[in-house]
Amino acid sequence: MADNEKPQGKPPAAEKKGEKEGSKAGKQAVKIPKGTRDWVGADIQVRDKIFKAAGEVFARHGAVQLDTPVFELKHILAGKYGEDSKLIYDLADQGGEMCALRYDLTVPFARWLGMTNTQSIKRYQIAKVYRRDQPAVARGRMREFYQCDFDIAGEYDTMIPDAEILRIIVDVFEAVGLGKDVTIKINHRKILDGLFAVAGVPADKVRTISSAVDKLDKLPWEEVKKEMMEKGLESGVADEIGEFTKHSGSLKKIIDLLKASEKMMANESVKKGVEEMDLLLSYLEAFEIPDRVTFDLALARGLDYYTGVIFEALIELPPNSSSESRIGSIAAGGRYDNLVGMYGRRQIPCVGVSFGVDRIFTILKQRHEDEKQRAKGVDVYVMAFGGKNGLLKERMAVASELWKAGISAEFSAKVKPKLPQQFKAAETGGVPLSIILGEDELAAGKVRVKTLGLADDHPEKEGRLVDRADMVEEVKRQLSEGQSEA
Amino acid sequence: MADNEKPQGKPPAAEKKGEKEGSKAGKQAVKIPKGTRDWVGADIQVRDKIFKAAGEVFARHGAVQLDTPVFELKHILAGKYGEDSKLIYDLADQGGEMCALRYDLTVPFARWLGMTNTQSIKRYQIAKVYRRDQPAVARGRMREFYQCDFDIAGEYDTMIPDAEILRIIVDVFEAVGLGKDVTIKINHRKILDGLFAVAGVPADKVRTISSAVDKLDKLPWEEVKKEMMEKGLESGVADEIGEFTKHSGSLKKIIDLLKASEKMMANESVKKGVEEMDLLLSYLEAFEIPDRVTFDLALARGLDYYTGVIFEALIELPPNSSSESRIGSIAAGGRYDNLVGMYGRRQIPCVGVSFGVDRIFTILKQRHEDEKQRAKGVDVYVMAFGGKNGLLKERMAVASELWKAGISAEFSAKVKPKLPQQFKAAETGGVPLSIILGEDELAAGKVRVKTLGLADDHPEKEGRLVDRADMVEEVKRQLSEGQSEA
Repeated sequence: MADNEKPQGKPPAAEKKGEKEGSKAGKQAVKIPKGTRDWVGADIQVRDKIFKAAGEVFARHGAVQLDTPVFELKHILAGKYGEDSKLIYDLADQGGEMCALRYDLTVPFARWLGMTNTQSIKRYQIAKVYRRDQPAVARGRMREFYQCDFDIAGEYDTMIPDAEILRIIVDVFEAVGLGKDVTIKINHRKILDGLFAVAGVPADKVRTISSAVDKLDKLPWEEVKKEMMEKGLESGVADEIGEFTKHSGSLKKIIDLLKASEKMMANESVKKGVEEMDLLLSYLEAFEIPDRVTFDLALARGLDYYTGVIFEALIELPPNSSSESRIGSIAAGGRYDNLVGMYGRRQIPCVGVSFGVDRIFTILKQRHEDEKQRAKGVDVYVMAFGGKNGLLKERMAVASELWKAGISAEFSAKVKPKLPQQFKAAETGGVPLSIILGEDELAAGKVRVKTLGLADDHPEKEGRLVDRADMVEEVKRQLSEGQSEA
Repeated sequence: MADNEKPQGKPPAAEKKGEKEGSKAGKQAVKIPKGTRDWVGADIQVRDKIFKAAGEVFARHGAVQLDTPVFELKHILAGKYGEDSKLIYDLADQGGEMCALRYDLTVPFARWLGMTNTQSIKRYQIAKVYRRDQPAVARGRMREFYQCDFDIAGEYDTMIPDAEILRIIVDVFEAVGLGKDVTIKINHRKILDGLFAVAGVPADKVRTISSAVDKLDKLPWEEVKKEMMEKGLESGVADEIGEFTKHSGSLKKIIDLLKASEKMMANESVKKGVEEMDLLLSYLEAFEIPDRVTFDLALARGLDYYTGVIFEALIELPPNSSSESRIGSIAAGGRYDNLVGMYGRRQIPCVGVSFGVDRIFTILKQRHEDEKQRAKGVDVYVMAFGGKNGLLKERMAVASELWKAGISAEFSAKVKPKLPQQFKAAETGGVPLSIILGEDELAAGKVRVKTLGLADDHPEKEGRLVDRADMVEEVKRQLSEGQSEA
């Protein structure tokens, strides 16, 4: 599933020519393309934590990983994204096949299912996708950004995979430490479609009215109603939609509310949807997560291809947070039973979810930014005090021994570095431990192992002089003590 | 470093139109772009094993990970790849910046160094790169393929980072289980350049003669000599090159050989190169890897930007292997001190290596293809025997409990699956353990935990009936026993 990042629908205007193209004539600026970023340092550690947590949850549910090319044949992407197709990045025509960068991970998955004639699979993919949208870096809208998709494809009994997807959403947010902050809204396309029909929306206006309803989380009712009327609805019809879509609550509450309406239940589509939601509720109980899900009749979701359950995971920020940092949807998805048939010989029903990695990243980073992060993961800095030729080869041999023992280690790549420079390098890198070599000590077969940054009155402030043969053990000991103190 | 995949230098001819464009008129074939592939299943497990092993080695040496966008501004890539520039994939001009897909990971790294004004770093990047070459899938030449680059940037004392890179190459191949099979060839651009000068190659022909020498590992001397003469060398000059480039052996042997030649040592460039190789040898001894490296005076490397040590890791296949599966270079790199200055305000000396992930993958896969691989990593299949409604909710609750305990589990997404179907699904998935639910057992608070595929006379063939409360422990016990038996 692919659309938790809602595109703006506007392709960027041609960018201004000559805009800061380097200070000197003839020399072009060293820049990164607009709407893209480099990932490095602490950011990549937070990002990898999300990937690892999600990947472990998916594997626990029996999913396999799929990695597709960054570009697809252009005709594979054509006609899948409605008016947002203009945001697709095309490759230049250089005399071969016509290709375009992937816009989401759903279409490549459907293409792969069709090509391989796979009948059923749980698959996940974590990868970058591309949208030639107007970038808004501060608000997290990028042209290159990560998606993390999990989908279950195959002919199964009603609502069983759908319930498992919801359980996976709960599991992933718990694994990244956001379990308590996330609410999952859910609705059913059949109920929504039936509701529109009962209210009197003409069949050919259902999708466009649905996308107006989808704005209810951002706009006041009056504005949404105005949009509906501009789209051709009568005031009374709009009001009836408004009357129903204002309801949300536990699955049981909303199911009971719908069941109590004879007018609604007389509609076949609503009736079917309610039966399915009833079944879903019983499965969510078996999975112990009914209280994690809210039934919201105003949830509509933009994409056309949903055919059943739709859902969206939202994170609620404290009310005093600035509008700049307010973040809504961080995962979204639903059931789409008719997409794969566009690529293969037969339909394969699917249900899936897409996690908004960049948004989850932004939230986790905000939370951890006060925590002191080690700049990198090196455990030991090997240094020398005096000695002929800076004891370089001895430092190398010690580092070599640590590497062999699986311990990360660095040393100054200078022949004769000064001792304060070596301490400074260790400090800058946040390295917790040093090994200090001296000519006399080495002659006696000894090295000093010293935890850095200890208080002046700490009994091990000066480190420990140990036999060269005991060095690796002593390093491990001091490292594990340092961890338990931290 | 970026060129262990040697491009063919020929852009693909315009592909035939209408080539198998779907069997029916109007319906386009569901295909993947030429020279690209999907990664899935056992392949992705082998690939991830390589990534993990390499990443751990890099981290042990204090490297940080860098992840750059898949495309760069076109002018960043321009003028960096000589005649291979025509293999660059351009993005279409859709009214914004002009961009192109990355061709390697070295130029994005240099761009990042320049942009951030970073003075020194160890960085690694594992990512796909793009070359619009004529694909040859059987021989592993793809248009989209992985590179795995490790580079050390910064002003350091001579040969210290170079020695560490060589140590890292050894470590990575040991980590993926190819330690014994890989030979590292090494040479020095200064020696090679001096050698050409001594032999009488005009300065403006050094690079083109160098690329002829680079073919000595594939072509017989006679053909290489012919190429040199076509490029304008006299026969005697070519022969003198041939005389020297035929030497290879331990660093000590070749250093001594060069030192013994007064004519060679009279050349400043050769003299400097030999001094540096002497220093390198002493550092490789400190790192305990001098016997892993062969000094080969015929190693030239194609790219222009190398300025010092150059190297290539080769895997030797048994002599009876077919020419189709003969694989040469699986990692390559060298020192390039003048590239970063093209992007930043100042030069930053660099040395680095690029591992050919796809080739390493092909070798590992060949080795492991006889080993029985589990199709996926699920540990437990939860099934039911009889019972009302197939005991679906009970199966769900059991799976839910296992997931919570971090155990991977699946169950049939059917309300009433037949028992043989459930066993078949577990078998197909290579799942080692089952939990079998029955109505009577559940009423008594019991479940059956059964290792699958045991011999008929095995004492635990029928599994164990355990209290529901002891289920997770029993699963862990049987799983760990299964592992120790396997």
